[in-house]
Amino acid sequence: MHVNATPDTRSVDATPPAHVEAALREYLDTRLAEITSLDEAVGAAARALADFVLGGGKRIRPTFAWWGWRGAGGAADGPEAHRVLTAVSALELLQACALVHDDVMDASTMRRGSPTVHVAFAARHRDNGWHGDSDHFGLAAAILLGDLALAWADDMFACSGVNPAALAAAAEPWRAMRGEMLAGQYLDVLSQVRGDVTEDAALRVARLKTAAYTVERPLHLGAALAGAAPSTVDSLREFGADIGVAFQLRDDLLGMFGDTDVTGKPAGDDLREGKRTLLVALGLRSDRSGLLRAALGRPDLDTDTVERVRSMLADVGAVADVEHRIGELTDSAMRALDAANLAEPAAGRLRELAIAATKRNR
Amino acid sequence: MHVNATPDTRSVDATPPAHVEAALREYLDTRLAEITSLDEAVGAAARALADFVLGGGKRIRPTFAWWGWRGAGGAADGPEAHRVLTAVSALELLQACALVHDDVMDASTMRRGSPTVHVAFAARHRDNGWHGDSDHFGLAAAILLGDLALAWADDMFACSGVNPAALAAAAEPWRAMRGEMLAGQYLDVLSQVRGDVTEDAALRVARLKTAAYTVERPLHLGAALAGAAPSTVDSLREFGADIGVAFQLRDDLLGMFGDTDVTGKPAGDDLREGKRTLLVALGLRSDRSGLLRAALGRPDLDTDTVERVRSMLADVGAVADVEHRIGELTDSAMRALDAANLAEPAAGRLRELAIAATKRNR
Repeated sequence: MHVNATPDTRSVDATPPAHVEAALREYLDTRLAEITSLDEAVGAAARALADFVLGGGKRIRPTFAWWGWRGAGGAADGPEAHRVLTAVSALELLQACALVHDDVMDASTMRRGSPTVHVAFAARHRDNGWHGDSDHFGLAAAILLGDLALAWADDMFACSGVNPAALAAAAEPWRAMRGEMLAGQYLDVLSQVRGDVTEDAALRVARLKTAAYTVERPLHLGAALAGAAPSTVDSLREFGADIGVAFQLRDDLLGMFGDTDVTGKPAGDDLREGKRTLLVALGLRSDRSGLLRAALGRPDLDTDTVERVRSMLADVGAVADVEHRIGELTDSAMRALDAANLAEPAAGRLRELAIAATKRNR
Repeated sequence: MHVNATPDTRSVDATPPAHVEAALREYLDTRLAEITSLDEAVGAAARALADFVLGGGKRIRPTFAWWGWRGAGGAADGPEAHRVLTAVSALELLQACALVHDDVMDASTMRRGSPTVHVAFAARHRDNGWHGDSDHFGLAAAILLGDLALAWADDMFACSGVNPAALAAAAEPWRAMRGEMLAGQYLDVLSQVRGDVTEDAALRVARLKTAAYTVERPLHLGAALAGAAPSTVDSLREFGADIGVAFQLRDDLLGMFGDTDVTGKPAGDDLREGKRTLLVALGLRSDRSGLLRAALGRPDLDTDTVERVRSMLADVGAVADVEHRIGELTDSAMRALDAANLAEPAAGRLRELAIAATKRNR
């Protein structure tokens, strides 16, 4: 169950995502061999999960965790660095569970340019002429493969081989992160059905679902694995919480204004899905004509109306307000990062990541 | 994250399930307080999960694990015994995930005399007059609460406080058990849609979904926590695998012939659901009239046809064949138990459990 080889990790700093992918590939190969030995058909299903995990993603969570480790004094190379890389790469399996189950809950049909897992397994059912309802089989397969991803995430983390003291120190952020991720997802679903339109509700989802799960806790996890002092952990978490919310606010702006060719998502998709973002909450305060309220959550929205909502959000100052908050959050994050007093190159790389995450166009 | 108190565990041997419930209650109280502090509404949802976990179940998996620990020389009392009790009680959270997600996949409406989680949350949506589709909200809530149960299972196990060496030794059965459980569930779903009717297919599902997950691996887990010798682990696993399959075969007979007043399930329910059990596989070999094949998986089956199928299964010897196999498996299990040479009272209690599991009428 431990990784067997200890490849040269001196170059992790240069390209963390590539090393995360190598760690995932190594781990998944072992798991696939094992599960295929139980049953070929189960192995074939698990391979679809492995392909999904290896098929894309920016590896942003393990990258933040890696820099948390490095910034708190963790070594760039050697056996412990490789074990830590394995432990933090488990975040991608957690994310795979979140995405596969999210796609079921959102009834999404496409992800990373391919059919979502439940859609792919429904097609597998149809193509084989199996008994019963194809969509229901797709649902069952996606639920079970998401569960498998979650179980594998825990195994990869727990069996990474990092020393017991480090593992014990990392147990709290690992536990908190998974709880916050699921709490954020539930709150997101609940906000949609309750029609929560307050700024507070939007920010709460952003804090749990994105900030805590994507930036703050991964940084905390990496730092804890390095045995960081509480003050360092506090500063890193503050940085992560602010950058994480700013990241989500940028995402909200892209979801409304992003260029389809760049984001890969249809224009106005967030509007059709009725997402209760801070941008929407701010817009609704000035929605005198009821344009935004009427458009929110209408799957058949035409591009003309999307364009009118966009203009309105800009005209009433909601866009500027969100941009202003992104700026403020980025500034306070940078102050927290300075206070953390991290070793280089971690401080510089986290600064770059923060800017990339909040100024990106995709 | 660790349990704070170290209650007297001298009496665990007398009533393992009651002590498992106490450990679960203690653990869930902490988790609920924590998640409620994130958000009240999320806390309310998590409370429904906790109520489900505490609301019933025979605690059979932690009980087997406890006797694996005791049989391999683990102490009946003291702090380490309490920590082990906490670690093995996590099996009930794993089972909660399996049941909540299973009920979604089977579209079951009732469980333990109450509405299933997805049905209860759909009702919550309807009662509050929330936006969107009630059933879809119920589905989303059940997926997320099942995920939360799985994450909590791992946390409760990893943070039980058992010493690092024991935790490392138990990592393999813990990992294998979750993989086998999910593999078994997928194979079960796949067998239904493919219409697998071979004895081999039925036994494979029984081995993974019931034997490994319910008896063999829990025993392995408990023994590993006690640092058992490989030969003891092997004998215990052999015992568990045989008893587990016998347990499933008994379940299959009860699903077809059980008294509704005793089992709490409608007569012939397994038949209506089209379950591909060994009993059914054996019956299909002699199904010259096509009665069984036509009845299998028909939701609208009348009691008269159920009665005719029952008679047919008895007449062609399928029932006697399954009973014979239960007897053989129980005998070989008892030989393996003798070979394990366990300390008392574990050996005696495992013998009793084995008999209860294979001769039960509910």
